[in-house]
Amino acid sequence: MRAVDLIAKKRDGAELSHDELAFLTDGYCRGDIPDYQMSAFAMAVLFRGMTPAETASLTLAMARSGDQVDLSPIPGIKVDKHSTGGVGDKTTLIVAPLVAAAGVPVAKMSGRGLGHTGGTIDKLESIPGFRAELQREAFLAQVSEIGISVIGQSGNLAPADKKLYALRDVTATVESIPLIASSVMSKKIAAGADAIVLDVKAGSGAFMKTAAEAEKLAQAMVRIGTEVGRQTAAIISDMDQPLGYRIGNALEVQEAIETLQGIGPEDLTSLCLTLGAHMAVLGGVSASVDEAKEFLKSKLASGEALEKFKAFVAAQGGDATVADDPTKLPQAFYEVEVAADAQGYVASIDAERLGHAAMLLGAGRAAKDDAIDYGVGLTLRKKAGDPVKIGETIAVMHVRTPSGFEDVMEKVRASYVIQAEKPALRPLVLSVVTASGVNRFV
Amino acid sequence: MRAVDLIAKKRDGAELSHDELAFLTDGYCRGDIPDYQMSAFAMAVLFRGMTPAETASLTLAMARSGDQVDLSPIPGIKVDKHSTGGVGDKTTLIVAPLVAAAGVPVAKMSGRGLGHTGGTIDKLESIPGFRAELQREAFLAQVSEIGISVIGQSGNLAPADKKLYALRDVTATVESIPLIASSVMSKKIAAGADAIVLDVKAGSGAFMKTAAEAEKLAQAMVRIGTEVGRQTAAIISDMDQPLGYRIGNALEVQEAIETLQGIGPEDLTSLCLTLGAHMAVLGGVSASVDEAKEFLKSKLASGEALEKFKAFVAAQGGDATVADDPTKLPQAFYEVEVAADAQGYVASIDAERLGHAAMLLGAGRAAKDDAIDYGVGLTLRKKAGDPVKIGETIAVMHVRTPSGFEDVMEKVRASYVIQAEKPALRPLVLSVVTASGVNRFV
Repeated sequence: MRAVDLIAKKRDGAELSHDELAFLTDGYCRGDIPDYQMSAFAMAVLFRGMTPAETASLTLAMARSGDQVDLSPIPGIKVDKHSTGGVGDKTTLIVAPLVAAAGVPVAKMSGRGLGHTGGTIDKLESIPGFRAELQREAFLAQVSEIGISVIGQSGNLAPADKKLYALRDVTATVESIPLIASSVMSKKIAAGADAIVLDVKAGSGAFMKTAAEAEKLAQAMVRIGTEVGRQTAAIISDMDQPLGYRIGNALEVQEAIETLQGIGPEDLTSLCLTLGAHMAVLGGVSASVDEAKEFLKSKLASGEALEKFKAFVAAQGGDATVADDPTKLPQAFYEVEVAADAQGYVASIDAERLGHAAMLLGAGRAAKDDAIDYGVGLTLRKKAGDPVKIGETIAVMHVRTPSGFEDVMEKVRASYVIQAEKPALRPLVLSVVTASGVNRFV
Repeated sequence: MRAVDLIAKKRDGAELSHDELAFLTDGYCRGDIPDYQMSAFAMAVLFRGMTPAETASLTLAMARSGDQVDLSPIPGIKVDKHSTGGVGDKTTLIVAPLVAAAGVPVAKMSGRGLGHTGGTIDKLESIPGFRAELQREAFLAQVSEIGISVIGQSGNLAPADKKLYALRDVTATVESIPLIASSVMSKKIAAGADAIVLDVKAGSGAFMKTAAEAEKLAQAMVRIGTEVGRQTAAIISDMDQPLGYRIGNALEVQEAIETLQGIGPEDLTSLCLTLGAHMAVLGGVSASVDEAKEFLKSKLASGEALEKFKAFVAAQGGDATVADDPTKLPQAFYEVEVAADAQGYVASIDAERLGHAAMLLGAGRAAKDDAIDYGVGLTLRKKAGDPVKIGETIAVMHVRTPSGFEDVMEKVRASYVIQAEKPALRPLVLSVVTASGVNRFV
């Protein structure tokens, strides 16, 4: 087998076999196949696409390229959750304890963030004392004991994906649905869960700008899961504005706690219930999504979800009393209000621009080794559909110094699209993709 | 400017500017842009194509990436000739002295061969004493004095093309018409001629399998020539069988001499007159192709073309008396006849397979540093359209030892396609492409 012949085969629109894709992936990961062949292959895939069987083969080859987590010592159906990434997305902090309280074991590895704000692990580490590094035995024991653990990605998960993603990033081959789908799924499969619920964002603040594109990606990922025997469901959710009101690490933990207390923002609560309900169904604790939603609502109302959060934080060394007194979380000393410079209704909020503003305040990393300031960030006062007057506060910047953020303020202001007419808002959950089909809500 | 953005632009079907293509080409040639970006770009070009302006920009950038030959000290319009390569193609050996005898100055650089037989330089070097390495001054002086010099490619012509071609070869991006066209034309432009006549082969033995594909390539090259101010014409000629009867270095020199004596094979003579006529027109010595053909025929008949060949060979140290006594050329000691194993008519001869057979006899190089045996090769006894009986000789192998070439004999035999009915033969020259359009003969 020669790499050049496989590139030509894909270029000419033929289907590659499982062995051929394994040859390419393994050879690339080992360094036997050079970057220049793999980038030409990726570009050919971008134009020609991949069949479901090809996508599954590539995914499995990447999943097997490094460590594979064995979660079998934990009893029950382990369900993982993944978001394609959005600004102000703190759903894992809520959904994980929520479904754990409902009896679905959560043994989750999460990442740190690059860009607008930190990742889930950064957010959790804003809780004083929280430790994200656990040994494998301690991780499995904690899940078996209290039903939940969330740790930082350790070991060498899907190194072939890591290498290929870095190459795609500099060769204009990121925007290929089968390649994006296999990248996400290879890591999830290597992470060992039995079933996977995906939160695929669509909108100006997401990688997929339209619901149709997001649905295609979701379908590709659900097909991979089905092909490789991991039940998978995907929720397409709106990213025409950030989720909830808070952007920033400790600020998002605070909002997650409020949501677990049953007093969180409606959009965030609703999406968490939907994601959690699908996890509960795949995890075998509920018979239907509607039933699961009611069950999860009861876990919020009874306080069990919040208690699970506290037990989880405490088990990993964190100060669980932050749930009772959020002032124990890192704070920024100053609040600077951003006033509207137009009048009308908020039509949408450019989440990407807002995320960039949060990063400039110190909430995210521009480069891999940058430090994060847990306390800083943004609180939105107006969201899509809200009326607004000139001079009215639309958002608050939580900052370390009382001045010097004029450029960021301008960026926050510019991220608001204000129009004269009251906008028609689309629902937060646009559609759900499962192995049995697509269920659209718009 | 970032390479990744230019790759994305091409990927999305937009047109790159002259500066953008120069940035890519220069950066790649310098090593600032890595192979993996250039291969992704090449694959994007393969799918998206390039506009005539883009193709011209890429060609010029590659032509300017190294040495550029200045032929201006030679008076007159210097016309170059290039063949896309074929088995048994000895046209340069004939056309160059022929048009020189007609007053078109020929200052030509040629290559050595890799594959079936040697290149033009290898063929010339089979003449005892011939020197292909001349200093620039001697080269220019010889052309000014006797009107012709053919030397080996020296210096550093179009290194960007060389680097890109090697990359395309291993990334399945060879088969792109704008990339093939710019590769050929960049070297011709760097070589300094004022006008260019291209011999584009079409058929089983050529890279372009159909006349339509060959015509597309020819049009792309003629457009480049026009865009950069070098008048260009392209002849599409048939390669469903080798040109002439002889394959092998000294054997081809012998056949070239016969053609210059006016007793060469009809197909070879006819193609040389067509190529030469277009060179004479572009070189300004004839008003029309028909007039030029008659003029060139008179140069063959008068012996002036053969005299020019002898003067040229002698000027470069070669033994010009080989033209009077071809036994002075290197000889293989044995002739082994290949007999037909079928009866009927020769429909076609797989030139590629036959070329490979010649290489196995020692006429060509399998690897760059292999030595060539100038004397060995093949003489065809039957060509397309000829009737053949079982056991009749279809070809002769010229070899060093009387036996041990059974596999090559089988290959020669297998390259003949013999059928019951007399085939309808297509003309040798299929079409002519010039800046003013296409003239088809089939």
